[in-house]
Amino acid sequence: MPSSLTRSLPRGLTGTSPRQLSLTTSPAPTSLIPSRHFSFKKGPIAKEKVVILGSGWAGYSLARTLSPQKYDRIIISPRPYFVFTPLLASTSVGTLEFRTILEPVRRLPGGNFHFYQGWADDIDFSRKTITVETNAAEEAASKTVVPPPGGQIPLRDKGEVIEVRYDKLIIAAGAYSQTFGIEGVREHAHFLRDIGDARRVRLRVLSLFEQCSYPSSPDGGGNGHLLTDDDKRALLHFAVVGGGPTGIEWAAELHDFIRDDLGKMYPELMPFVKITVYDVAPKVLPMFDKALADYAMGHFKRQGIEVKTEHHLERIRLADGKLGRRHGAVQIKIREVKENGGEVGAGMVVWSTGLMANPLIAKLAEKEVLVAKHKNPMTGEAIEKRRLVRDKRSGGLVVDGYMRALSVDADAKPEEGKELERKPLDDVYVIGDCNCIESEPLPKTAQVAAQEAQYLAKELNRGNTPGVEGKEFKYTNWGTMTYLGGWRAIHQSKADELKGWIAWVLWRGAYLTKSMSWRNKLLVPVYWVISWLFGRGISRF
Amino acid sequence: MPSSLTRSLPRGLTGTSPRQLSLTTSPAPTSLIPSRHFSFKKGPIAKEKVVILGSGWAGYSLARTLSPQKYDRIIISPRPYFVFTPLLASTSVGTLEFRTILEPVRRLPGGNFHFYQGWADDIDFSRKTITVETNAAEEAASKTVVPPPGGQIPLRDKGEVIEVRYDKLIIAAGAYSQTFGIEGVREHAHFLRDIGDARRVRLRVLSLFEQCSYPSSPDGGGNGHLLTDDDKRALLHFAVVGGGPTGIEWAAELHDFIRDDLGKMYPELMPFVKITVYDVAPKVLPMFDKALADYAMGHFKRQGIEVKTEHHLERIRLADGKLGRRHGAVQIKIREVKENGGEVGAGMVVWSTGLMANPLIAKLAEKEVLVAKHKNPMTGEAIEKRRLVRDKRSGGLVVDGYMRALSVDADAKPEEGKELERKPLDDVYVIGDCNCIESEPLPKTAQVAAQEAQYLAKELNRGNTPGVEGKEFKYTNWGTMTYLGGWRAIHQSKADELKGWIAWVLWRGAYLTKSMSWRNKLLVPVYWVISWLFGRGISRF
Repeated sequence: MPSSLTRSLPRGLTGTSPRQLSLTTSPAPTSLIPSRHFSFKKGPIAKEKVVILGSGWAGYSLARTLSPQKYDRIIISPRPYFVFTPLLASTSVGTLEFRTILEPVRRLPGGNFHFYQGWADDIDFSRKTITVETNAAEEAASKTVVPPPGGQIPLRDKGEVIEVRYDKLIIAAGAYSQTFGIEGVREHAHFLRDIGDARRVRLRVLSLFEQCSYPSSPDGGGNGHLLTDDDKRALLHFAVVGGGPTGIEWAAELHDFIRDDLGKMYPELMPFVKITVYDVAPKVLPMFDKALADYAMGHFKRQGIEVKTEHHLERIRLADGKLGRRHGAVQIKIREVKENGGEVGAGMVVWSTGLMANPLIAKLAEKEVLVAKHKNPMTGEAIEKRRLVRDKRSGGLVVDGYMRALSVDADAKPEEGKELERKPLDDVYVIGDCNCIESEPLPKTAQVAAQEAQYLAKELNRGNTPGVEGKEFKYTNWGTMTYLGGWRAIHQSKADELKGWIAWVLWRGAYLTKSMSWRNKLLVPVYWVISWLFGRGISRF
Repeated sequence: MPSSLTRSLPRGLTGTSPRQLSLTTSPAPTSLIPSRHFSFKKGPIAKEKVVILGSGWAGYSLARTLSPQKYDRIIISPRPYFVFTPLLASTSVGTLEFRTILEPVRRLPGGNFHFYQGWADDIDFSRKTITVETNAAEEAASKTVVPPPGGQIPLRDKGEVIEVRYDKLIIAAGAYSQTFGIEGVREHAHFLRDIGDARRVRLRVLSLFEQCSYPSSPDGGGNGHLLTDDDKRALLHFAVVGGGPTGIEWAAELHDFIRDDLGKMYPELMPFVKITVYDVAPKVLPMFDKALADYAMGHFKRQGIEVKTEHHLERIRLADGKLGRRHGAVQIKIREVKENGGEVGAGMVVWSTGLMANPLIAKLAEKEVLVAKHKNPMTGEAIEKRRLVRDKRSGGLVVDGYMRALSVDADAKPEEGKELERKPLDDVYVIGDCNCIESEPLPKTAQVAAQEAQYLAKELNRGNTPGVEGKEFKYTNWGTMTYLGGWRAIHQSKADELKGWIAWVLWRGAYLTKSMSWRNKLLVPVYWVISWLFGRGISRF
C-alpha cells in the first residue's frame, strides 16, 4: 500500500499535519473549529472519527469494510441492526425466522466502534457536529416510517438530544416509501422495508385466515351468519400495489405459503383466496426484458395470481361496518388508466411502489453551510455560505464520482440557462438511496448502495482523500433476480439470463455470504431445510 | 383394548345408547338437550365432541394425546400456540429464538381437529354450550393478562361472540399471575408466563443497556451530563420479585447473558449492573432441601446476584422526572419484614410470585348449573340446581380423583360443621392450574398439568367414563430442576439429587422430547450451539 504509507508518514513524523496545526492552535470562534483533536494518552495522533448515518445496505456495508485500525467508526442509526432485505419477503411468510436476516450493529465485525441509536436530526457542517435524537428508550422501532403530508419526520415522543462530532461524515440515511400522497396508504397499507413490517405482514396474513375460520353455527356446520362468503372473499383478498421485484416476490412468496401451508390448515377457505398485483404501468418488472417479464406473467397466471397493469390506486379506506372496524378490512379504490374506477375489498394491501426522499435530506439541502473560504479561521470574514445540491427528480443529494456531497454558493443566483458552479464539501460523503451521482444517476437498490459503500470504505482504508487521490466509483451491474414462486425465478444481467431455483439460491447465496455473519449463514439454510421438512413458521406471535 | 370394544359395540348395534335415545327424541326445552346428535352422512354415530379450553400444559397435552379417531377435538384458546414454559427464560435473554418454544395449535399432531381462537366467556352446562369471545382479529395477544382489582377479565375491544357445543368439556384455562393487589405491579412489572412477556423482557433489557450507552459529551468522552452514574445504577438494577424457580432461573439466565454477551458489548456499564432477588419468605426455592437451596444461594453470591429474603415489595411507581417518563425507570418500595422500608430504583422488575385464580373459574363457580335430576326431560320439574365447588385457598375448581368437576346442591345450606354433599357433574373435567384435587391438592406446575392431561386423555381414549370405569389419577413427582447460571443447576426428587449442566440438559431434554414437535426438537439444539458459538441473539426487535 504505497499510498497509505506516503500519507501516514509525514503525520507520524510531525505529530500533526499542517492543516491540523493551523486549525487547532487558533483561538477562532468555536463554530468553525473541527473536532479533530489530539489525544495525548493514545499517542501523537488520534484516529479520525468517521461518523456513519444509517445502518442499511450503504451504512452497514461501509461500517463493515472501513478499517477499525485506521478510523474510529461511529454509527448512528434509529435501527440497531442491518436488515438483509432480499430475504425480507421470506420472513414475512414464515420461511425464515425474522432474526436470521438481522445483523445487530453491536456485533459489527472488527469491534472498536461506537453505536448511538437515534435519528440524525440535523447536521452543523461548520462545527462538524450532528444532532441526534436518541431513541433507544422506545419500544423496538422497526416499522417503515412514512412522513405525513408536508414531509416532516413523524411526530414521536422526543428522546434526549445528543451531539456527536465527526471528522468525516458518511450520510447513508436511505429513502422513505413513496406514497404519492394517496389517501389512506399511510394508515392502512403494509410496507415491506423493515423487519417490523415483515412481522406485521405475517401476523396479518395469519390473523385473516384465523378470523375467517370460526364456525358459523354452534355445531360447527352451516355457512356463515358470522362472516358471509362475500366477507371472506374481501378479507382473503390480498392486494399488492406495485409490480416491481418487491411486490412480485411478495405475491409469489404468499402464494407458496398459501399453497404449501395455509391451504392444508384451512382447506375450506381456499375458494375465497385471491392475490392481485396492481401496477399503473402497462408492464410489470420494468427492469426485465419483455421475454422474461412475459415468462413471469405466464407463470403468475398459471398460479392464479392476477396482475392488473394500467390500474391506478386512488384511495384506501376502512371497510364499512364491522368488517372494517372489527376485522380491519379495507376498500381500495382502483381506477383503470383508461376507464373509471370502482372499489374492491381487501384484507390487506402491501405497498411497494418506490421510494421518496428522506426528510433529513430535504432539511440538509435547504440550509446554509458555512465554510471557511481561505481555510484561515483567524479572521472572521473569510466565510463562504454554501448549500448542498439536491436532485429534483430523485430527491437525493447530488454527489460527484467520489461520493462527495456537492455544494453551490448559497448567495449566488444562477445566470439564465446556466447552473451554479458545484464544488464538493470537504469530508462529507453521501452514499446509497439518499444520493444521486451527478454524472450517472443509479437506481435505489441494495446493489448500488453496497457497491458505493465498499468503494468509499476501500478508498478511505487506502488513506486516499477521495477526489484528490484514488479513482472514481464505477458501478458494476450484477443483474437483477426476482423470485416467482413455485421454485422458479428469473435473473437478468448483461452477461446472461438464468431461470430456476438453483440460480436463485446461488445468487442469493452470494449476497448472503458477503453480507451476513456466520451465525446467519448457518441459520438461513437451517431454516430453509426446516421449512421444507415441516412447513413454514405459523405461530402467530 | 377390551374395554373400548365392549363399550363401542352396543352403540354400534343400536345406533344410540339408551341415554342418548331418551334425550334426543324428547321435545323437552332445548336448554336441557345436549348437543349429541346423529350425523347420517358420516355413519350411524358421530364422534363425541370433546371441547378443550386452553392451550397450555394441560389443554395442549390433552389435545395431543386424545385420539382423533375416537373424538372430535375442539380446542378453544385465546393463544394460537402452546408455550414450552421451561425454556421461556432462555428466550427472554436470547439464548433461544422465541418461536422455537412455541407449538402452533394449528399444527396439532394427528390433524382432524378444530381450533377457535378466543376467550371462553361463559359456559352453559345445561345446554352444553360455551360462549366464546373471538380474538383472532387482535394483534398477537401474547402478554400475561392481569385482571384489575375486582377480578374481571380485563377490558378489550369485544370480538364477535360465537357459541360452541360440547359433549365432553375439559376446562384447562390455567391461572393468572398473582399480584396481591400491590400498587403498580400490573402497570410496571414484567411477567414471564407467555411468549410476549419474554419478548418484552428481552427488548427491555437490551434497551436499558442501549439507553445507558450514549456519550455524555460530543466527543464521546466525559461522564454523564445526560445520565448520571446514579441514573445508570438505577436503570441497570434488575429486580426480581419471587424466589421460586422462575425468578431464580431468570436471574441466573440474565446473569449469564450479561457476563457472556452484554459485558463484551458494554464493558463501561458493568460497574453499574446489579441483580437483586426479593422474597418475602425467609428462604428461597422452598421446594428444595436446605442443602440444595444453600448451594444455590452460595452460587448466586459468587456470581454477585443479591438475594434478599424477608423483604416485602409494597409498591412500584414510575421514577420521578425524565428517568421515569423518558427511560421508564421505576422506584420500588421495599419493606424488610422486621423493619421499615425504603425505595430503590430499578430499570425493570420481573414479577414471579405465584398464581391466582382465572376469572373464568370464579364466574363458573358462582353460577347455578341446571341438571336433569332424573335424566327425564319430558317433565319440566325434575331439574336440580347445582353449583360447582371452588377451593378457597387455591381458587381452583374442586375435582375428584378422575378430574371430574364436583358440584353441590345450589339451594341447600350446609348443616353446621358439615359440608354439602359433592357430586361430579357429568362430562365436565377440570385439569391443570385451574383445578384442585379434593383428596390431594397439588402445586400449580407444568408437571402436574401435563400428567393430569395425559391421564384423562388416556382414560378417554380407552373409552372409559372416568369415575365409572378406569382408575384414579396418581401423581408421580419427577422432581424439580432449577438452573442457577454458569452451567450449574440443581435437581431434587425423592430418588436422587443432581447437579450440573448435563443434568439440566437431560432433564429439559426429556420434557422437550415429550412435548415438542420435531421442528423444535431440531431447532432448540441448533440455537444452543449457535448461541454458544456466536453469542446470544441481541437484535432488539
